Amino acid sequence: MSADKAGTARAAVEIYDTTLRDGSQSEGLSLTVDDKLRVAALLDELGVHFVEGGWPGASGKETEFFRRAAAGDLVLEQATLVAFGSTRRAGARAAGDGVLADLLAAGTPAVCLVAKSSPSHVRGALRTTLDEALAMVAESVALLVGEGKRVLVDAEHFFDGWREDAGFSRQFVVAAAEAGAETVVLCDTNGGTLPADVERIFADVAGWAPVPLGGHFHNDSGCAVANSLAAVRSGARQIQGCVNGYGERTGNADLCSVIPNLQLKMGVPTIGPERLARLAPIAHHVAEVVNVAPDPHQPYVGVSAFAHKAGIHTSAIARLRSSYEHVDPGAVGNGTRFVVSEMGGRSTVALKAQQLGLHLDDPTVADVAGRLKDLEHRGYHFEVADGSLELVMRRATGWKQPFFRLESQRVITETRDDGSFLTEATIRVHVGDQRVLAVAEGNGPVNALDAALRQAIGPTYPHLSGVHLTDFKVRVLDTSRGTGAVTRVLIDSTDGTRTWTTIGVSENVIEASWAALEDSIVLGLLYSGAERQDPPR
Amino acid sequence: MSADKAGTARAAVEIYDTTLRDGSQSEGLSLTVDDKLRVAALLDELGVHFVEGGWPGASGKETEFFRRAAAGDLVLEQATLVAFGSTRRAGARAAGDGVLADLLAAGTPAVCLVAKSSPSHVRGALRTTLDEALAMVAESVALLVGEGKRVLVDAEHFFDGWREDAGFSRQFVVAAAEAGAETVVLCDTNGGTLPADVERIFADVAGWAPVPLGGHFHNDSGCAVANSLAAVRSGARQIQGCVNGYGERTGNADLCSVIPNLQLKMGVPTIGPERLARLAPIAHHVAEVVNVAPDPHQPYVGVSAFAHKAGIHTSAIARLRSSYEHVDPGAVGNGTRFVVSEMGGRSTVALKAQQLGLHLDDPTVADVAGRLKDLEHRGYHFEVADGSLELVMRRATGWKQPFFRLESQRVITETRDDGSFLTEATIRVHVGDQRVLAVAEGNGPVNALDAALRQAIGPTYPHLSGVHLTDFKVRVLDTSRGTGAVTRVLIDSTDGTRTWTTIGVSENVIEASWAALEDSIVLGLLYSGAERQDPPR
Repeated sequence: MSADKAGTARAAVEIYDTTLRDGSQSEGLSLTVDDKLRVAALLDELGVHFVEGGWPGASGKETEFFRRAAAGDLVLEQATLVAFGSTRRAGARAAGDGVLADLLAAGTPAVCLVAKSSPSHVRGALRTTLDEALAMVAESVALLVGEGKRVLVDAEHFFDGWREDAGFSRQFVVAAAEAGAETVVLCDTNGGTLPADVERIFADVAGWAPVPLGGHFHNDSGCAVANSLAAVRSGARQIQGCVNGYGERTGNADLCSVIPNLQLKMGVPTIGPERLARLAPIAHHVAEVVNVAPDPHQPYVGVSAFAHKAGIHTSAIARLRSSYEHVDPGAVGNGTRFVVSEMGGRSTVALKAQQLGLHLDDPTVADVAGRLKDLEHRGYHFEVADGSLELVMRRATGWKQPFFRLESQRVITETRDDGSFLTEATIRVHVGDQRVLAVAEGNGPVNALDAALRQAIGPTYPHLSGVHLTDFKVRVLDTSRGTGAVTRVLIDSTDGTRTWTTIGVSENVIEASWAALEDSIVLGLLYSGAERQDPPR
Repeated sequence: MSADKAGTARAAVEIYDTTLRDGSQSEGLSLTVDDKLRVAALLDELGVHFVEGGWPGASGKETEFFRRAAAGDLVLEQATLVAFGSTRRAGARAAGDGVLADLLAAGTPAVCLVAKSSPSHVRGALRTTLDEALAMVAESVALLVGEGKRVLVDAEHFFDGWREDAGFSRQFVVAAAEAGAETVVLCDTNGGTLPADVERIFADVAGWAPVPLGGHFHNDSGCAVANSLAAVRSGARQIQGCVNGYGERTGNADLCSVIPNLQLKMGVPTIGPERLARLAPIAHHVAEVVNVAPDPHQPYVGVSAFAHKAGIHTSAIARLRSSYEHVDPGAVGNGTRFVVSEMGGRSTVALKAQQLGLHLDDPTVADVAGRLKDLEHRGYHFEVADGSLELVMRRATGWKQPFFRLESQRVITETRDDGSFLTEATIRVHVGDQRVLAVAEGNGPVNALDAALRQAIGPTYPHLSGVHLTDFKVRVLDTSRGTGAVTRVLIDSTDGTRTWTTIGVSENVIEASWAALEDSIVLGLLYSGAERQDPPR
């Protein structure tokens, strides 16, 4: 147990999500208004206290988001929607400032104002005086508070500024607080500050700040999560970050790590245990909406976060769960998973068989373990090919696929007169008592073979029309040697509800492709229940 | 500047890479012996002090790695190769223990022994007494030291153990040290410890440990990098981790963040500034060898780590660099990047052309930039295909490859009577005034086409015999859509001194393969000087 947790009850910390603003600056991320509305609803469901929706007026899309949110397209049950923007311009007046007007027009209960809090940035980027910078903050906050808004202030480049001139840092925080800001958020804008410095600087500021402080960290040093925890240790009452750690450059602090660390390890209340148990599914759902492949190795919520591969571990897990799981995976909506690989021994095979609902006796488990080791030595890689693994296990029990038997096949690719390429596959296959000959064209050998096989056996197995290949990957192994190179083919398939991956390895890429394809189709038939329609042997 | 850096010179910290052992437990990672040898050589080039090669005897592959390393297939210039394994079994003798014998047989200068240092794990997993656990460590270390090995001890579950019974932790460290271990490494095996606890526990142990301490952290709490820094702050003299943060579950501490944080921010010497400047290219090279897509958002070395959105001017960056970049990207072998399109900017094209010795006038640069943008939209990815990029630029000047012209080709793959697969390619090609028809067999379509083309044009271009394909990768793009999916083929080639990558994109995988193959051969001929032998037009 953490020493922190052993202490007395800690003050609660607010969670402020900026996925829709700072997070959407992540390279490769582009959100529609609908996407943003969906993500906001998911964040509310997760239980974060603030959802920053964007910068109204920055683009038509941003303005549209707030318009639709206000029109009732977004109903937040507990989160507070925040509009983000800058203070009034240097040398201008707050009243009539365009950005502040857009912030008011957004119609949110709360506004977050960003302002430069480092003297060198005030002078170098804003090109104004420190006094004017303080006036810009104070007057902008006062105007918004006067209009009934809750106001937070993001103090940009705060840590760099504190190192330059801690006196100005103090003036900045005090000016924002006295003008009515409810929270001043210390931002490590370029992400360069390390946890020890965050803890020290936060402790200093918390000692004299008249209002609660927040922390906002970027991951440029790989320490955004640790920096958030350090800030809380030194008194921060709010942490800003993004679900899944999205954000410009290396991303913002990943709330999927910050929240469970605070709640489960430091005893700091955030979103409560019931909502925490929704973390992993919501994180994956958000990833789906924003169309970014989730990182399997992401702490707490990644599909590999509680996956066990080494044989040494899987046997120990059964005995002493805490050996290799730092928290109960269920507390964050995740689960334990066992991965079969060359590292795994018999215990992993037995566990995996159990998960698949196969009952293997001890000698069969030993056989399978030996066979997997041999196949992996030849280039197979079963931890990513759960489908083919299942078939290896089934075959070890004496099972044979009862659906079809290949007699021969031929694939021809040739250039047409116009220089384009045409691929055609011919297949001879036995289905039950029938011998079927079929031919089909495709975008390449695998595609053509797939089409020909479906033509040959499709009439017997109509379920097959719901099964599709979704990805196809090829790798040449041991490429440094002139001879002995083999090709590994991986095929991902789906029937709409479940997905599976199959593998083929051979010196001949077409042979490897065929093996993976055959496994894919066999599993598609197996999962569709075709087995019962046309029983084995 | 960090407060740490402002202090006096810090003691150096050893970097211990365990990518080939702990890192290879990462789900989705499966290394051949050749892969392991290549990664070890890259780590040596990076300048890490220790390269852990694996667990000899754990599988045939592991044993083979050490055999080939000892046989001269791995020459480390400065790193020390380490074999990893467990202590003698409980209740047995060290002399004659199988694991220890395998460790000695591996023939490495150093050995790392892992041993449980938490009482509950000793009792629950090892099922033995604490005294026996200490004897297992002491006797195993003594045996290896007696045989002339440098010995390190990985104290498994150390932090959990210290919280349970700090007295046993002390006995453990002292026993290992007195038996001759040069370093005792405190391991956070389940990755659950937070930085503040690491700093506190390390400080305690460093106060009485008779030998230097190391730290080994997993990223389950998202704090592995920060934990490594906290350990160093409290006296650790060695950090174990993995390049790119590979490892089981959520990964090990990412050395690509640990090293620059220590060196650039905390003033702790590790691999030196010259080698640090190789960090990003070596991290990417390792990712390529282990065939894991690099994380663009990875701190320091990711392609997005110093990427700035369009609209920010170079002049703005120059004026106030620290606004956007926490360190000089060049210090870690990375660079500032402006996100518009990968190669779309004219200045990038002009720079690249200059590097290739091509003189493009302004309209041609604009043409190429437009063409690259169009091709990248269609699935090309020139950042990794320097060879094809060069040909696009050459063609923009009106250049045509003068070596051969394809009339047509055909590839047939069919099953033989014994069920094995045979691939044959026929090619019709014009070489100078000759029309040549050639046929060849291969391990697949690309291999057969390559062989047929070489047969057709080889007599005219004998230089071609020195050019080889070294890798071949296929990816399907836009797989989520039912239609419009294209295949991207990448081919790596070498003539023994230089290497180049070419790309082909098409709906038909054979057509994409042919495009990449043709570019590869053309470049091989170009680089060999064949151009001058048979001048254009």
